[in-house]
Amino acid sequence: MRFYHTMVRVSDLDQSLDFYCNALGLEETRRFERPEGRYTLVFLAASETPDAEIELTYNWDPEEYTGGRNFGHLAFHVENINDTCQKLMDHGITINRPPRDGRMAFVKSPDGISIELLQHGDALEPAEPWISMENTGNW
Amino acid sequence: MRFYHTMVRVSDLDQSLDFYCNALGLEETRRFERPEGRYTLVFLAASETPDAEIELTYNWDPEEYTGGRNFGHLAFHVENINDTCQKLMDHGITINRPPRDGRMAFVKSPDGISIELLQHGDALEPAEPWISMENTGNW
Repeated sequence: MRFYHTMVRVSDLDQSLDFYCNALGLEETRRFERPEGRYTLVFLAASETPDAEIELTYNWDPEEYTGGRNFGHLAFHVENINDTCQKLMDHGITINRPPRDGRMAFVKSPDGISIELLQHGDALEPAEPWISMENTGNW
Repeated sequence: MRFYHTMVRVSDLDQSLDFYCNALGLEETRRFERPEGRYTLVFLAASETPDAEIELTYNWDPEEYTGGRNFGHLAFHVENINDTCQKLMDHGITINRPPRDGRMAFVKSPDGISIELLQHGDALEPAEPWISMENTGNW
């Protein structure tokens, strides 16, 4: 038995790819357009775990995506959590839980999917601007 | 960058472990009891992808978990989808989308998390009781 993917729905594919790929750093691996079903599937993966995919489902007909508490988050290990959060902030992403401890941060996708980022290996030396940054909202 | 886990919350840990481990076939890899925070974390993984984990968060104080449409499902490849679905049914799990095509099935966790099962490799020869089984509910 093998883990294959976690699927999340997205309401705006361009905005979501800007978040998941350009800001967060995942890579698009495959894409399927299904005009007959009016949806598009885009598979993403982190570079070092190509087999553990995130499937974005974009339904062409709009529906509202409200978060449910039963789904918690997607988590990724990153090489340098300070750099990752800086890149996200440069993309205009709110760092809901800044990595004040050099170890853990949370952000949210454009559709409110909570994303946990964890420093790979030992925690980094805590650094600004994160040390002084308060939490924002929930995650 | 590495995928680490998908976290889902569970309202009843025993019932959830019976589903995820005994019925579905995941293995418990680690467990952390946090009395000071009144929660328990249990990490699960499919046998061939130990690094791609599912984290179950059990909050000791009850809250209601209603599904949100933005989270779709967790997906796993299995060796024999007919056998997996038979095992799930023997555990009293509803096969919401039976593997009529020998290829794909959907079930739900006790908290309504949708689980997609996919036959690894080529589809199996369609078999009873799945061929004659209608869909049940949504997934």
